[in-house]
Amino acid sequence: MINVSVNGYGTIGKRVADAIVQQPDMKLIGVSKTKPNHEAKTAVDKKYPLYVVKGAEESFSGVGFEVEGTIEEMIENSDIVVDATPSGVGFENSKLYKKFEVPAIVQGGEKEDSVECSFNARANFETSVGKKLVRVVSCNSTGIARLLTPIEERYGIDRARVTLIRRGADPGQPSKGPINDVILDPVYLPSHHGPDVKSVLPNINIDTLALKIPTTLMHVHVVNLSLNKSADKVRMCELLSKESRIHMVALREGIKGIAGLKELALDVGRPRGDLWENCVWEESISVEDKEVYLFQAIHQEADVVPENIDAIRAIMDECSCKESMDLTDRTIGMGLGR
Amino acid sequence: MINVSVNGYGTIGKRVADAIVQQPDMKLIGVSKTKPNHEAKTAVDKKYPLYVVKGAEESFSGVGFEVEGTIEEMIENSDIVVDATPSGVGFENSKLYKKFEVPAIVQGGEKEDSVECSFNARANFETSVGKKLVRVVSCNSTGIARLLTPIEERYGIDRARVTLIRRGADPGQPSKGPINDVILDPVYLPSHHGPDVKSVLPNINIDTLALKIPTTLMHVHVVNLSLNKSADKVRMCELLSKESRIHMVALREGIKGIAGLKELALDVGRPRGDLWENCVWEESISVEDKEVYLFQAIHQEADVVPENIDAIRAIMDECSCKESMDLTDRTIGMGLGR
Repeated sequence: MINVSVNGYGTIGKRVADAIVQQPDMKLIGVSKTKPNHEAKTAVDKKYPLYVVKGAEESFSGVGFEVEGTIEEMIENSDIVVDATPSGVGFENSKLYKKFEVPAIVQGGEKEDSVECSFNARANFETSVGKKLVRVVSCNSTGIARLLTPIEERYGIDRARVTLIRRGADPGQPSKGPINDVILDPVYLPSHHGPDVKSVLPNINIDTLALKIPTTLMHVHVVNLSLNKSADKVRMCELLSKESRIHMVALREGIKGIAGLKELALDVGRPRGDLWENCVWEESISVEDKEVYLFQAIHQEADVVPENIDAIRAIMDECSCKESMDLTDRTIGMGLGR
Repeated sequence: MINVSVNGYGTIGKRVADAIVQQPDMKLIGVSKTKPNHEAKTAVDKKYPLYVVKGAEESFSGVGFEVEGTIEEMIENSDIVVDATPSGVGFENSKLYKKFEVPAIVQGGEKEDSVECSFNARANFETSVGKKLVRVVSCNSTGIARLLTPIEERYGIDRARVTLIRRGADPGQPSKGPINDVILDPVYLPSHHGPDVKSVLPNINIDTLALKIPTTLMHVHVVNLSLNKSADKVRMCELLSKESRIHMVALREGIKGIAGLKELALDVGRPRGDLWENCVWEESISVEDKEVYLFQAIHQEADVVPENIDAIRAIMDECSCKESMDLTDRTIGMGLGR
């Protein structure tokens, strides 16, 4: 049994904590919060042991939230920590994890060179075995790595060109924009996503461009690939359909955008309407000799959740990539059927 | 002096009418409206002779709008008609123009095979000389043709890949969406834009993909080109800077999205905040040997306006392409400086 704690119980942390308690080989030691907000309340309601910054105990106990102890105490009692604090804070926290000699996972907002290695289960699970500080790449990089890995294995990719049409803000972020604008983010090329994908797929030749638009639900990727070998649509669909973390959106589903996907996730009872899978529109897959196009949607709040679970097993050297991915998929309920 | 009438005084028609009255070689015979709405009021205020459908005279005169006559009378008195009615109506109207033996220009919403030829000033001005029914290609195709023509001439284009991030609705269309969605439009590939560009640049190898998003201001194009000859950024910028209908957005302008461009257009006093030019972000131009990337914005309400003016001169065989484009540019005030 692996004792895991989650430092930072926000958008990613609360989802990872929920996934940890579903794992037969893991125990959730605790979660940490800086403020006694509505998210802290859900942790208390779920009976997740709540740890806080030293000195903040009273602000929690004052509103009736039982506090288990300080973050330092939580870390000391853990076999491994999943850090889901805001970008940059994870790097600061890594000094603390080192002090207590506890291995840690940080999120994609941390810099590539601030960690020992970057992680995507499908792309490079083994690289993280036995490491002390591992970064799960961002939601976009995770989605790209999942898609490109099987295609690279089968056909070889000469060049990947990905345009990221990014949600402006998460649904719970009223202070972020844009409204009625398209922001080139950045104006210059390439965006940081290409190099980030290379942190888990070092041999991929990839160019990325990114734009920010007035939506909150998901990112959309416009993918173009020039392959080394000829392909055809039927085999490309078969290849991608075999991937457990890719949902192939069928024509008869009648889903033409991200709002339709969100409605589907809510209808099937997914917690928080989460889509852990890449959603690739089968109808959009266009293959002409070595040239491929497709659209995929990436739920920014959710797709890294299974990757964090697998990263725990990789670091702890618990089992193989396939065993870990299968177990994670089965326990959280991956797969939307066809 | 060319006697021109504008059938349909909506988003495009009202702008084309305003441009016609600025031309030294044209006279605006009249404009037509189906309803006495706020746009009809501006036509009356501008003293544009107002023509209406037979039988609708009273609905206009009843609210004090002086009516000059019927649409048939307007057409009969014209040397040429610019049809700016909704998609499909232009084709229906073409029978009327044929009956009166008046040459006509229809807009990009009409089908390619419903006209004698398609028009973009920079790409194929000469093709329309002496023709009776010519289609000015859509705003998006116009923007792509303007960009690709000089690059094709200089370097040769092996393959163009363009992702169109389309505004969901014009600012004055409250009933259209989406809100908080990204619609794959269409889900399958390619979108109709690639074939439409080929109607004016038949030898271009182009793939297009399109998505509709919650903005109203402009379209954004993500352009990737594989050239036949090597290029470099400096020469590519020089080449595009020479095009009168391409505005190169400079870094120091501090514009990172379409709302910034709109603000610029309003600040410089452009009528209705119109941008007739393609706006290409200089900073976004990335050239690596034969591979080019860039972002451009296309104002869907405005960029076809100068093309309609040039199409009039082409059909009437008035002057050369260069003479027409220069005259149109000078009279309407093309160019935003650097």
